[in-house]
Amino acid sequence: MNDSDSAVTPLVPREGWHVMHLFYHVDHAQWAMLDDEDRRQAKTRLTELVQEIRSTDDTHLLVFSIATPKADLGFMLLTPDLQVANAFEKRLTLSLGPDILTPAYSYLSQTESSEYTTTSAQYSEETLIGEKGLDPESPEYAAAMKEFEERMAHYLKHRLYPVLPDWPAICFYPMSKRRSGADNWYSLPFEERKELMGGHARTGRAYSGRILQLITGSTGLDEHEWGVTLLAKDTIDIKSIVYEMRFDEVSARYGEFGDFYIGMQLPLSELFRRLCL
Amino acid sequence: MNDSDSAVTPLVPREGWHVMHLFYHVDHAQWAMLDDEDRRQAKTRLTELVQEIRSTDDTHLLVFSIATPKADLGFMLLTPDLQVANAFEKRLTLSLGPDILTPAYSYLSQTESSEYTTTSAQYSEETLIGEKGLDPESPEYAAAMKEFEERMAHYLKHRLYPVLPDWPAICFYPMSKRRSGADNWYSLPFEERKELMGGHARTGRAYSGRILQLITGSTGLDEHEWGVTLLAKDTIDIKSIVYEMRFDEVSARYGEFGDFYIGMQLPLSELFRRLCL
Amino acid sequence: MNDSDSAVTPLVPREGWHVMHLFYHVDHAQWAMLDDEDRRQAKTRLTELVQEIRSTDDTHLLVFSIATPKADLGFMLLTPDLQVANAFEKRLTLSLGPDILTPAYSYLSQTESSEYTTTSAQYSEETLIGEKGLDPESPEYAAAMKEFEERMAHYLKHRLYPVLPDWPAICFYPMSKRRSGADNWYSLPFEERKELMGGHARTGRAYSGRILQLITGSTGLDEHEWGVTLLAKDTIDIKSIVYEMRFDEVSARYGEFGDFYIGMQLPLSELFRRLCL
Amino acid sequence: MNDSDSAVTPLVPREGWHVMHLFYHVDHAQWAMLDDEDRRQAKTRLTELVQEIRSTDDTHLLVFSIATPKADLGFMLLTPDLQVANAFEKRLTLSLGPDILTPAYSYLSQTESSEYTTTSAQYSEETLIGEKGLDPESPEYAAAMKEFEERMAHYLKHRLYPVLPDWPAICFYPMSKRRSGADNWYSLPFEERKELMGGHARTGRAYSGRILQLITGSTGLDEHEWGVTLLAKDTIDIKSIVYEMRFDEVSARYGEFGDFYIGMQLPLSELFRRLCL
Amino acid sequence: MNDSDSAVTPLVPREGWHVMHLFYHVDHAQWAMLDDEDRRQAKTRLTELVQEIRSTDDTHLLVFSIATPKADLGFMLLTPDLQVANAFEKRLTLSLGPDILTPAYSYLSQTESSEYTTTSAQYSEETLIGEKGLDPESPEYAAAMKEFEERMAHYLKHRLYPVLPDWPAICFYPMSKRRSGADNWYSLPFEERKELMGGHARTGRAYSGRILQLITGSTGLDEHEWGVTLLAKDTIDIKSIVYEMRFDEVSARYGEFGDFYIGMQLPLSELFRRLCL
Repeated sequence: MNDSDSAVTPLVPREGWHVMHLFYHVDHAQWAMLDDEDRRQAKTRLTELVQEIRSTDDTHLLVFSIATPKADLGFMLLTPDLQVANAFEKRLTLSLGPDILTPAYSYLSQTESSEYTTTSAQYSEETLIGEKGLDPESPEYAAAMKEFEERMAHYLKHRLYPVLPDWPAICFYPMSKRRSGADNWYSLPFEERKELMGGHARTGRAYSGRILQLITGSTGLDEHEWGVTLLAKDTIDIKSIVYEMRFDEVSARYGEFGDFYIGMQLPLSELFRRLCL
Repeated sequence: MNDSDSAVTPLVPREGWHVMHLFYHVDHAQWAMLDDEDRRQAKTRLTELVQEIRSTDDTHLLVFSIATPKADLGFMLLTPDLQVANAFEKRLTLSLGPDILTPAYSYLSQTESSEYTTTSAQYSEETLIGEKGLDPESPEYAAAMKEFEERMAHYLKHRLYPVLPDWPAICFYPMSKRRSGADNWYSLPFEERKELMGGHARTGRAYSGRILQLITGSTGLDEHEWGVTLLAKDTIDIKSIVYEMRFDEVSARYGEFGDFYIGMQLPLSELFRRLCL
Repeated sequence: MNDSDSAVTPLVPREGWHVMHLFYHVDHAQWAMLDDEDRRQAKTRLTELVQEIRSTDDTHLLVFSIATPKADLGFMLLTPDLQVANAFEKRLTLSLGPDILTPAYSYLSQTESSEYTTTSAQYSEETLIGEKGLDPESPEYAAAMKEFEERMAHYLKHRLYPVLPDWPAICFYPMSKRRSGADNWYSLPFEERKELMGGHARTGRAYSGRILQLITGSTGLDEHEWGVTLLAKDTIDIKSIVYEMRFDEVSARYGEFGDFYIGMQLPLSELFRRLCL
Repeated sequence: MNDSDSAVTPLVPREGWHVMHLFYHVDHAQWAMLDDEDRRQAKTRLTELVQEIRSTDDTHLLVFSIATPKADLGFMLLTPDLQVANAFEKRLTLSLGPDILTPAYSYLSQTESSEYTTTSAQYSEETLIGEKGLDPESPEYAAAMKEFEERMAHYLKHRLYPVLPDWPAICFYPMSKRRSGADNWYSLPFEERKELMGGHARTGRAYSGRILQLITGSTGLDEHEWGVTLLAKDTIDIKSIVYEMRFDEVSARYGEFGDFYIGMQLPLSELFRRLCL
Repeated sequence: MNDSDSAVTPLVPREGWHVMHLFYHVDHAQWAMLDDEDRRQAKTRLTELVQEIRSTDDTHLLVFSIATPKADLGFMLLTPDLQVANAFEKRLTLSLGPDILTPAYSYLSQTESSEYTTTSAQYSEETLIGEKGLDPESPEYAAAMKEFEERMAHYLKHRLYPVLPDWPAICFYPMSKRRSGADNWYSLPFEERKELMGGHARTGRAYSGRILQLITGSTGLDEHEWGVTLLAKDTIDIKSIVYEMRFDEVSARYGEFGDFYIGMQLPLSELFRRLCL
């Protein structure tokens, strides 16, 4: 963390982290005006800043090249304090020198738990007692309940404090739920929304081990209501899961999507070569 | 106030103040072309202008860093006379030198009272006589009525002449009411609109002490119909209140939102460091 | 009028004038590159051009500063011949030197009479004979008819050949009538449109003396169907009239609005100071 | 035609011509950097290119100044071979030097016959036999049929190979037919579309001699489905015909319009003066 | 393939190739600042890069001039590995020097098989047994089945690993399927979607030999759901097929289209002349 921020009120949410997706164009005309020494220093500056960020507590930074000229370079930054995120973000933008990285798109969100996950009470009533016929006083019930609660705690921890794998392909897109005429998500009762989200989750689970999906909340923070980050080993899985989910009623009737960005996680040395820096 | 404006017809509304939200990018390529002395002078010029504005009668200025590269620096200016606001705004834009601050987004609105607040007659009839069964001639009635009228006067004063707290997080977004097909706010009778707004207000009151909300009117003044400014101590409260309100029928069916900007109020010296100036 | 246009076919409409709204940003980085003498000459050139335009027959030019950085400087030009308007407009853009004024938004329209005004035949039948029971042969009828026709002639003259007051606040916005699903203005019969417009006119008349409204037609000329110019002494009247009219069915169901620009009419010397020129 | 294109496969449609509408801003800051001799040469280069294009077989070029700063200079190019059009267009863009003309908007379309015109069989059955009661073996029938076929051939020739008059005012706008909910043009049967277009054509005929209308097809070629070019002697006729047609069901329910550009055809010497070149 | 990428995890989909459409403006003001030798080298660099790409395994590159100033130069790149595509794309952008080619639009997609093609089981049941009454044990059935399966394998191979002809005209546009109100493609059952797509395919087959159509998938990869590439010998066939298909219910009710780009495949030497390089 930058000294300059030490006197500033931290903005650490009660739970979860702040997340920034930062996509840039490289301005090669500006870069061409630097001499070799300036360029070496610029790359060292970005490299050291990436190291500084990655060695900050509870802070993660993904770095990736972006496909097609709609952007060149992307960062995904996760850190608790928005003051810290803001300071890092401004420094990342300037890291290769003024006007070398020009913003193409960015997004602010927060990790959050899902309001639609099964509660312990529901699991007890519907699954353990209802489906499996367990006696709430039995050791089987206690064991199953313990297993459920550990699984949910693990799941919640991943959503609030995720550690993202180094899979090569990354996809980001923002989305909102539709509110128009008969297709108004926010007018549906909670139970109906929960059931619709459940169908979506089943589609997602079929991609377990191939797609890591992180949904972060941005209502009130940025132009859409959620950010979706997908990590994959094969872009065909990204295309498949998004296409398949589009048939789930929750997307078909209620999903509104922003633009999609496809990146490739790369070591910095490879990234510089990829971007002809 | 600037001498240059002394000969100009003031534009002070019969009630309330003019409000400008001003968001800028910092052009670091231009900044890099200044030498140290120029930069020192530029920062002094902005600092002195902020002091001048803040020492103007009935005038407030919030200064904040903005999250993500969609903007860098934000001001929120409240002052009675639009001529004065206009002069200050043009000078703020130029305060760090030509083309250092380039406009990212801006918004013009006015503080205004709500047309949906409870009137004294309503409070008397519905609450004091209807609910509490008080005799309009009784001292209890007189005391309750006095208390109500003082509370409403205080509330109205806050809406028209607000003093905003120095809470670190600030959120701004513009909004309009929908007019499409069956979801046409402006075709609803007043009583129905008042009731819908009442539900919204209840959601808002649950965040009392955590969120300070200021709604300013901009119909005829800018591209949306209202500007919403939220001040908070934790960004999670901003996300929560906006998300929760989206389920209120007044937002679910009738709310149309522009983009959301998240800022952090900072002392100028910290702000300069944050923005690498 | 510019000599260069003397050989050109005039484009003077059979009735009414051409109207241009011209909004510009001031590029202070370009301006900063001029020396004091260049700047003095630039301001003289704009001043002389404004005088030349204002001394042209049947030609009016309003000059104003614009609120918020969405623009800085605005002109409203009214003149019969589009060739002349085009020549003046290109010269205004260049008046402070190349690239000092960069276009922010512009709009082309024509003054026009309203198709929904009451005709003499209607006034005779509905008002004089129907409501007042006058005998069409009586001197009272003749006097009332004469008074009506003089009033309408005056009204029509103001719409086609307006002289705008020097009130300090000016608002411009473009608008169209909606054509979507059940809300299709252009599918309504004339009588229904006339009645809807009548309600709108009543709202407008309540602002007589406080708001001067000029509606100019732009179907086939620019991206919306009409331009609306409001002049006022207090911006709160601009906000009020536009807000109040939004509840008229003609706006609630059929109005589609572009962006709103708020300006302040200023003498040129004040304007230069306001814009830090 | 440019030598450089002689080795290239021509792209001449089986019938009709390619049409390009090309609208540019003049960058006066770039122009100001040229000395007098450079400027003279630049204007000569554009003048000679216009002459070269106009002397190319089956090729027409309209040149016009554009109203309001949304563009400055416009060309309308009609020529059979898209390869030739492409070469001319790139040269026109560069004709005054690099970056003097910067594209504001452009449109690609083709002249085409209307699918809704009356066929000889229809004219025979509905008009000559049905309405006029002519005997198909009679000389009156033969004469009327001949007259009809000559008129249609002339009309078709004008649509496919138009010669546009030098009337001073020109209007261009792109348009599509709506496909939304109950207002889906492409779901209507041919006969209904033909009847709707017939009403539109009647409105158009009332402007014969005052408005020359050319509709060119762009489905698959550019962002809308048709381009509409109107030539007029008075801009009020442009405003009137577009406004009046908006009430035809074919526009009211099915028309979607892009932006409107108004230009003035001028000799090059006048055009240079108009644009302060 | 670039050496720099040899240490990078390949991103080769399980089936099919990655496809990039890359459209650029040529910045002639930058180009004008190069001397003759620089320009010769720049053109040589692009020429050699095109050769390098075309000699890469399973990799194709189409190069074309683009009609109207909405872009100047286009590439269509097909290659298995997204890492390779990304490296080539960044080098193509820079091939003429920094800021000579500035991105106008780009699109990322993948070749894919259609989910709506007839399966062997369907062909057997519906066509061979149902329509033709063949005995599944007969040699006629075996021969017809073999012929069908070879035809389908050939078709699938063309969709996944296409070799595009050198026809002069190329059209690209992105598209999505509509999800609004009653027109929600993703809510239709598979059989209904298959039937609708079948009608579309019949329209397409009528253009066999005149139009080569390649549909590539981009759900989750870019802003629309598919990219459509058409190759033709006559632009009138492009206009006709897209117009005709718009009446198919699948387009009329469910098609949403992005912008259309028309290019001309040219040898590089002709392309440089066309673009005045």
